[in-house]
Amino acid sequence: MNKANNPAMMMDLYELTMANGYFLNDEMKNTRVAFDVFYRRNPDGGGFAVFAGLEQIVSYITSMHFSDEDVDYIRSLNLYDERFLEYLKTFRFHGDVYAFPEGTIIYPNEPVLTVVADIVEAQIVETEILAQFNHQSLIATKARRIVRAAKGRPVSDFGARRAHGNDAAVYGARACAIGGVSSTATVLAGEKFGIPVSGTMAHSWVMMFDDELSAFRAFAERYPDNCTLLVDTYDVVESGVPNAIKVFSEFRDAGKPLSRFGIRIDSGDLAYLTKKSRAMLDEAGFTDAKIVISNSLDEVTIRSILAQGGCVDAFGVGERMITAKSEPVFGGVYKLCAVNDGGKWKPRIKISDTVEKTTNPGLKSVYRIYDKNGMAVADLLTKAGEPVDVTGKYRFVDPERPWKLLFFENCTAKPLQEQVVRNGEKCAESGSVMEIAEYVKHQLSHEIWPEEQRFENPHPHYLDMSPEYYEMKMQMLSHNGRLPE
Amino acid sequence: MNKANNPAMMMDLYELTMANGYFLNDEMKNTRVAFDVFYRRNPDGGGFAVFAGLEQIVSYITSMHFSDEDVDYIRSLNLYDERFLEYLKTFRFHGDVYAFPEGTIIYPNEPVLTVVADIVEAQIVETEILAQFNHQSLIATKARRIVRAAKGRPVSDFGARRAHGNDAAVYGARACAIGGVSSTATVLAGEKFGIPVSGTMAHSWVMMFDDELSAFRAFAERYPDNCTLLVDTYDVVESGVPNAIKVFSEFRDAGKPLSRFGIRIDSGDLAYLTKKSRAMLDEAGFTDAKIVISNSLDEVTIRSILAQGGCVDAFGVGERMITAKSEPVFGGVYKLCAVNDGGKWKPRIKISDTVEKTTNPGLKSVYRIYDKNGMAVADLLTKAGEPVDVTGKYRFVDPERPWKLLFFENCTAKPLQEQVVRNGEKCAESGSVMEIAEYVKHQLSHEIWPEEQRFENPHPHYLDMSPEYYEMKMQMLSHNGRLPE
Repeated sequence: MNKANNPAMMMDLYELTMANGYFLNDEMKNTRVAFDVFYRRNPDGGGFAVFAGLEQIVSYITSMHFSDEDVDYIRSLNLYDERFLEYLKTFRFHGDVYAFPEGTIIYPNEPVLTVVADIVEAQIVETEILAQFNHQSLIATKARRIVRAAKGRPVSDFGARRAHGNDAAVYGARACAIGGVSSTATVLAGEKFGIPVSGTMAHSWVMMFDDELSAFRAFAERYPDNCTLLVDTYDVVESGVPNAIKVFSEFRDAGKPLSRFGIRIDSGDLAYLTKKSRAMLDEAGFTDAKIVISNSLDEVTIRSILAQGGCVDAFGVGERMITAKSEPVFGGVYKLCAVNDGGKWKPRIKISDTVEKTTNPGLKSVYRIYDKNGMAVADLLTKAGEPVDVTGKYRFVDPERPWKLLFFENCTAKPLQEQVVRNGEKCAESGSVMEIAEYVKHQLSHEIWPEEQRFENPHPHYLDMSPEYYEMKMQMLSHNGRLPE
Repeated sequence: MNKANNPAMMMDLYELTMANGYFLNDEMKNTRVAFDVFYRRNPDGGGFAVFAGLEQIVSYITSMHFSDEDVDYIRSLNLYDERFLEYLKTFRFHGDVYAFPEGTIIYPNEPVLTVVADIVEAQIVETEILAQFNHQSLIATKARRIVRAAKGRPVSDFGARRAHGNDAAVYGARACAIGGVSSTATVLAGEKFGIPVSGTMAHSWVMMFDDELSAFRAFAERYPDNCTLLVDTYDVVESGVPNAIKVFSEFRDAGKPLSRFGIRIDSGDLAYLTKKSRAMLDEAGFTDAKIVISNSLDEVTIRSILAQGGCVDAFGVGERMITAKSEPVFGGVYKLCAVNDGGKWKPRIKISDTVEKTTNPGLKSVYRIYDKNGMAVADLLTKAGEPVDVTGKYRFVDPERPWKLLFFENCTAKPLQEQVVRNGEKCAESGSVMEIAEYVKHQLSHEIWPEEQRFENPHPHYLDMSPEYYEMKMQMLSHNGRLPE
C-alpha cells in the first residue's frame, strides 16, 4: 500500500477516459456544459430526503488537484495522451456550482445541485460529488426517521464500529446530526464538527471488576455527574438494576446524590425491561434516573417499544442508522442537462421507457412555493431566468396531470438553488453542522406538511412546471430528444 | 469544520471514559488483559466469511498517537483527569496482537484477532479495530458471493459513487479485490493498492455528440485497444447495437480491426438484451466482441441472468457490492476474554441466555484441522499452549453434541493466529492485496468443502474444542462465570 490519499483520485476511471477524449477533441475541449444532481426515489418509502454533504462537495471542488505521483500513476495505465497528463498536473476546477442550501428538505427529480463548467472539468468531478451527496443524504434522511420515531427523546449515534470505515463513521455522524440526532459517540466527529459527544460504559468495564456492584460503585465514584450504568452484563432485573439502585442509594445516603445518572439496557426484551426497571427505580425513589436503551434500534423498533409503553428517556442507535441498514443506497445521479453550442445553451434529455425516468432537460430554476401560511405547497421547475410571479394568479402544469388547469394564488416563491462556487472559488458561507440541523428542524416544523412526513404512504410532494418549461420538455420528447431548430 | 483527522480519535467516547477510569485505579492501571475479536453469524445465510482489514488494523495500532489539539479537545469535554490527559499526550500502544492471516476463511465465534495489552491501551483501540474488521470483512465476503455467482467471468467494482464516503469506496475496493473481484473503477484504489483499474464510458459521452454513431466512432478512434461502447442511451436493439456494429465494421473494413472491444448494457431486461445483442454481434462476424453488463447487480441477479442463458462476458457491479446492500452490517465484537491477576491469567466469560451467545473464555489457541487430502474438516479451540497432536488419534468435543465420542485421525493441525504486533511494533509482513486475494482463492479451491460454499443452506463449519478447554468453559458456566479457585 502506498500513501496515496488524494480525494481528487476518488473517481471512476471512466471519468478520466472521457475527459481525455474531450480534451483531445478541439471542438469539445472548451465546450461549457451543465450537469444536474438529483435522485429518483425516497428511501424507506418516505416522503422526502434531507440534503447533506454540500460542505464536503464544495471543499473538494475548490481544492482538487493532482500530484505528480497521481499523474505518474495515471500515466502508468497507458491509456491517455501525454498532453492530457500535462494538463492534469495543473488542473483546477474553474466552473460554477449552484446548490440548495445544505439541510434543505428535498424531493425526487429536482436539481439539488448543478455544475456548470467546461466538459472536461465537469466530467472529472462527478464521482466524488455523487459519493458525498449519496452518503450523507442517505444517513441524514435515515436519522430523521429515527429521531421522529423517538418523539422528542434524544437519540445518540453509537454506530462507528459498524460503519463502512472511518469516513462513514465520521461523516455519517455529521449526517446524523443534520438529521436531528442530539449527540454522537464518535470522538473524532465531535472534534471535527462540534457535535456534542456522549457515551456510557461497555460490558468490559463490568467484567474487569470482581463483581457488578464494585464495577458500578467505581464508575459512580469516578463520574458522579454523568453516571449511566450498563445493567445487562449478567441479568437486568435480578442483578443489574438492583446493583444500580444500591449504588445510587449509597450516594444519596452519604449526602452526595449523583447529579445526572441512570441505566442503559443493551439486550433482551426492551419494552418489558424498561417498564420493569422504571418501576424498580421509581419505587426506590429514583424517579429522576434516566433509562437509555440500545441494541439494533431503528425507527421500527423504537416506535414499537414506545407503542408498548416502554419507559425510555434516550436512545443509543448504532448499526441500523450509520449504515441505513433497511436501505443502504441513495440513488443520486449526475446527468448532463445542457450543452453550450456557440454561445447558445441547448437542452439535453435522457429519454427512458417510462416518463418518470426521463430527465428534466436544460438550464432551469427551481422554486419552493409557499402558501400564505408559509407551508410549502409544491416545488416548481422553470426555464432559467423565466419570470415567476405567484403573488397573483400563476398558471402551472402538474406533469402527471397535464390536462388540469392549475394555479398558484397568493403564494410566495423562493428560489432553491444559490451559487456556492464561482469560477472555481467558494462564494457562499456554509453554516455549522448544528446550524444546518436547526434549519432541517425548522422546515419540518413550519414548512413541510405533516402528511409528507408520515412513515408509511406519505403524501407525495408536487414537482410542478411552468407551462413554458413543460412545453419545451414535451417538444424534446416528441422530437427524439432534441429541440426542433 | 476543523482539520482534525487523526484516526486515533475515531473511537467511541466510552473508550476514553473507561480508560480514564482504569488509569486512575492503581490496581487496574497496569493490569494486562486479552480481548478477542470475533463475529457471530455469517452474512446472507452463507457458510463462511472472508477476513479482511488486518493491514489497516496493524497500521493503526502501531502508529496511533494523540496530537496536542486532540488532547485539548478531550480536555474541553470536562470529563477526564488531567493526569490521564497528560498520559494521552505520549500515548503509544505497547501491547501484542495475534491474528489470522488476512484473507483467511473465517467462521463464527473463533478469535480472528486477539489483543493482549494493559487494560487502558487494550480498551482504547477497540472501536477502530472493529470498524476496519467489520467493514472490510463484510465487503470481501459479499464480493466473494458475487464472484462465485459469475462463474469465472470477471467482475469489476463500479461502486464508488454509492459507497458510504471515500474510505468506503477505497477500502471497499480493496475488500472487493480480496473477495476475488478482478478490477475496480476507483482510481485511488488502483493507485493505493495496485488493484487493476477498468472503466468504459458514461451516457454523458453519448449525449455530448450530435448522435450515437458519432459518439461511438469518436470513442473507437481514441481507444482502439480498449473500446467498450455503452449501447443503452437511446435503445439497445434499435440503435445501440447496430451503431456499435457499424463502428466495429468500419474499423475492420479499413484494415485496422479493434483489438479489445465490445458493448456494455446498463438497463433493461439484461437476460433478453444480452442474448439478442450476442446474436446480432455474432451475425455481423464479431464473435470476439465482449458483452459487459451493469445496473444493480448482485449474486442473485447474476445467477438469474446466467440461468436464463444470458450471454455475458463480464459484470460491472456497483451499489449492491460496495454497500453489501442485502445485509450491510457485519456484527464483529471485541470481548474481554482474560485478565492477568498477579501473573496468572484468569479467564473471563460473558454469559448470555443462549449457549451460542456466551463467549469463549480465556487465552486460547485456534487450529484449522486438515484431513489427509488437505481439506479443512474443522477448527479447534484449545487452551493456550495445550499440546495438540492430530496425526494420531485425538479426542475432541463438539460443543453442540458434547455427548458424542469424536476423534481426529491422520490429520494435520495448523495454528491460525500468528503474532502481528509485538510490544507495539509490527512484527509480520503483510502481503499485497492481490496476494491476499490469491490466498482466498486457494483456500476456496483446495481446502474449503464445496458444501460450505453453497449460497443457500451451506453446511456449517465445525468449531470444536479440546476436552480440557470444553471442561473449563463448562466449569465457568456452572459457577456463575468464574473458575472455582
